[in-house]
Amino acid sequence: MQRALEYVDENFDTFIEDLKSICSIPSISTQDEGIKECVTRIKEIFEESGLNVQILEMEGANPVIYGEYKPAHYSKTIIFYNHYDVQPADPLELWTSPPFEPAIRDGKIFARGVADNKGNIIARVKAVESILKTAGDLPVAVKFVFEGEEEVGGVSLPKYIEKYKDLFEADIGVWESGDRHENGRPSVKLGYKGLAFFEFFVKKADRDVHSGRAGLVPNPVWRLVEFLSSLRDEKGKILIEGFYEDINISKEDEELLKQIPFDVEEVKKEYGLAEFAGEFQGFEAGKNFAASNSTSLNALKSLYLKPTCNIDGIKSGYIGEGTKTIVPSEALVKVDFRLFPGQTPEKLLENLHEHIEKYGFSDVEVKYHYGYESAKTPPSSFAVDIIRDATRKTYGMEPLIYPVSVGSSPIYNFINKLGIPTVSTGAEYWGSLVHSPNENIRIEDFRLAIKNIVNIIAELSKY
Amino acid sequence: MQRALEYVDENFDTFIEDLKSICSIPSISTQDEGIKECVTRIKEIFEESGLNVQILEMEGANPVIYGEYKPAHYSKTIIFYNHYDVQPADPLELWTSPPFEPAIRDGKIFARGVADNKGNIIARVKAVESILKTAGDLPVAVKFVFEGEEEVGGVSLPKYIEKYKDLFEADIGVWESGDRHENGRPSVKLGYKGLAFFEFFVKKADRDVHSGRAGLVPNPVWRLVEFLSSLRDEKGKILIEGFYEDINISKEDEELLKQIPFDVEEVKKEYGLAEFAGEFQGFEAGKNFAASNSTSLNALKSLYLKPTCNIDGIKSGYIGEGTKTIVPSEALVKVDFRLFPGQTPEKLLENLHEHIEKYGFSDVEVKYHYGYESAKTPPSSFAVDIIRDATRKTYGMEPLIYPVSVGSSPIYNFINKLGIPTVSTGAEYWGSLVHSPNENIRIEDFRLAIKNIVNIIAELSKY
Repeated sequence: MQRALEYVDENFDTFIEDLKSICSIPSISTQDEGIKECVTRIKEIFEESGLNVQILEMEGANPVIYGEYKPAHYSKTIIFYNHYDVQPADPLELWTSPPFEPAIRDGKIFARGVADNKGNIIARVKAVESILKTAGDLPVAVKFVFEGEEEVGGVSLPKYIEKYKDLFEADIGVWESGDRHENGRPSVKLGYKGLAFFEFFVKKADRDVHSGRAGLVPNPVWRLVEFLSSLRDEKGKILIEGFYEDINISKEDEELLKQIPFDVEEVKKEYGLAEFAGEFQGFEAGKNFAASNSTSLNALKSLYLKPTCNIDGIKSGYIGEGTKTIVPSEALVKVDFRLFPGQTPEKLLENLHEHIEKYGFSDVEVKYHYGYESAKTPPSSFAVDIIRDATRKTYGMEPLIYPVSVGSSPIYNFINKLGIPTVSTGAEYWGSLVHSPNENIRIEDFRLAIKNIVNIIAELSKY
Repeated sequence: MQRALEYVDENFDTFIEDLKSICSIPSISTQDEGIKECVTRIKEIFEESGLNVQILEMEGANPVIYGEYKPAHYSKTIIFYNHYDVQPADPLELWTSPPFEPAIRDGKIFARGVADNKGNIIARVKAVESILKTAGDLPVAVKFVFEGEEEVGGVSLPKYIEKYKDLFEADIGVWESGDRHENGRPSVKLGYKGLAFFEFFVKKADRDVHSGRAGLVPNPVWRLVEFLSSLRDEKGKILIEGFYEDINISKEDEELLKQIPFDVEEVKKEYGLAEFAGEFQGFEAGKNFAASNSTSLNALKSLYLKPTCNIDGIKSGYIGEGTKTIVPSEALVKVDFRLFPGQTPEKLLENLHEHIEKYGFSDVEVKYHYGYESAKTPPSSFAVDIIRDATRKTYGMEPLIYPVSVGSSPIYNFINKLGIPTVSTGAEYWGSLVHSPNENIRIEDFRLAIKNIVNIIAELSKY
């Protein structure tokens, strides 16, 4: 594989140009923008790399880009999951350079989606190209699945899997992303949190009313405040009956966290925070284990093992400058829940409707946007051995292995539906500002991420 | 005065044109728009009416238009208060015709400010003109004070009163507005609620953060929800210690409400409501009296005698279409309190700061926009006799006399500061949609409002 790794260095400038070209397309799935253009450009890059590619399409769904290469002889198949859609870029005024005009500064590439998840798309295609162009063939079969709805819940991927099941079969999966810790060590995630995204809406009077009538005309924001207060207590404990019931987090998950360095004060500084949210309280991880005496372990558990009910946005009434005295007619709040293995959005929805009935919130309209369950690969899987060995080679250090990622991703499609042991690694670092203004990756991390895929394929070929 | 009343009818079309001309100027004080143009146009109208006018100015304040006419011989002086500023017109899409292009439909004039409060400005100037042009003189002295900051709290009026105290002296005051009930009877208000307008702001992380970190990164909206929940219970009771302490509402105030017809189901229908806000609970009126067995009397007490804590607007995070999973960096809520005689914004502010300290909400930033105390004239005042007699003549029926208006207005400047017994009457009706889209007055109410001022002056001349 030495030649392949050299090929990466020799062609690295071209790889960066290809990355910039796809980052300049605003493929924002929630606003249905630039999807087609992005798919076309990625297809071109596949073809230039010598890989077979087909665009899978279904009505009402964004296309899935399916790439593959099957050598004449192979025993194992690896499948890569990525997504080409990105989050909206607002607030735009906080970006130093425009989000869809990729810019290089201080050894970093800045663009919306460069970290989440376009850097890894290019890294993986180019890693395979590097082997193919230098060895003339691959030692394993490779498959690529790049979907376009991850940032809006990946609702179509299960349908694609249903329809094209044979295409997706593999022995090992590599999921979308992974970042490097402040201490330089690359992260490997064995799974992801699940997600359920809701809107709650209250309408009272049929128009905004002079607030002198507030004694008589009900206020939809007060009603949302009451409803939200019923969902969660001040410590972050979720009050929906049955919410914690099925969580299946083990002592091994907690053990994995103990290897992770975490400087409480440094992390507070990183986010400009005076304090963290309510401490890890025991309830968060279900019935299995409680808060520890270590502040940093509790913080890690809050971050990685605590289901959350988060408010993403809220809007009602007069929000301009100055004052306006009205009882608003309606109020809207957007809320996401992060779920853990055992929990499902379907069960949450059921519990939520029971909650609404029990506490008399029938005037709160529930819109369930999307959701998916959580899933993870056991630490004992051969997939974990492979990635650990590859990481040692690429980075010269041990990976940090996380039971789940901070974020959510529909990895259950691979792990639970297709039964593929799947791990996650990528080109990001601790300062990548995923979902935030000035999203970026470090150029040298991008180079190593490509090489790591080369090494993963090399390790897999030994099995 | 018969000639004056005829003059009103003969010149009524011109009066409407003058009203339309000032309603076409968007004098929105909270956005600092069109103030100068509006003042200039009103000054012209004064001069055309044969009245003396001067524009009082102070640094950092919108001008006060001061008009007067002193006959050679008089014993009493009447002073009129109005404001030429208006509320913002949004949401614009709910207006049938543009808010600053006055339109006549179905016997009504539609425009932002036509009811609150430009209709009454014209009505009063034109009533005095009608007497002056037909009798050649006035039987009493008249003064006009038209301010330009009522919709942003009237913060400058007290300073003008301080500076120009002599100009403002009078025996009786007529405040800005009054409306006609569904049953046709005109309302007279003996006072107004007080007001205190706040913004509460919470900032946590220095940027929006991926909501997978919600277990660790505090959410400013959750914090506002907690703070708001600490201010008010589900029945609308305000939980700030000392809030109800100084309220001075009497049994007589409650008695006045008993004359007011109130059809609970009709009013619900009018606002498109399934239910009213939390019922009158006794606490609302301080220590003096409690909820009654009559649903409509309780609704009236909720409307007229219940101090409220109202949310005017709230904003945080992603409020666009679709989904975005973030912990927002900051959250803002606008809140107004309606106060009653005895309560002051200063005391509330003090109690609020104690509340914040007691319950540990030091992370909630308080911005006090403006406020003023409540004030009312006793039902036994000669001012009430005069307006009752005039109303009988103009409308051929008894007025409905309210202890306070639904809304707030800085009437304390006349009643408490200048010691002038002051009542309020005007050209609006129950469907005027004050502060709402499609604000309007009925043309015939406008005519009667002018005639009523003629009759008030006639009544006063007997004293």
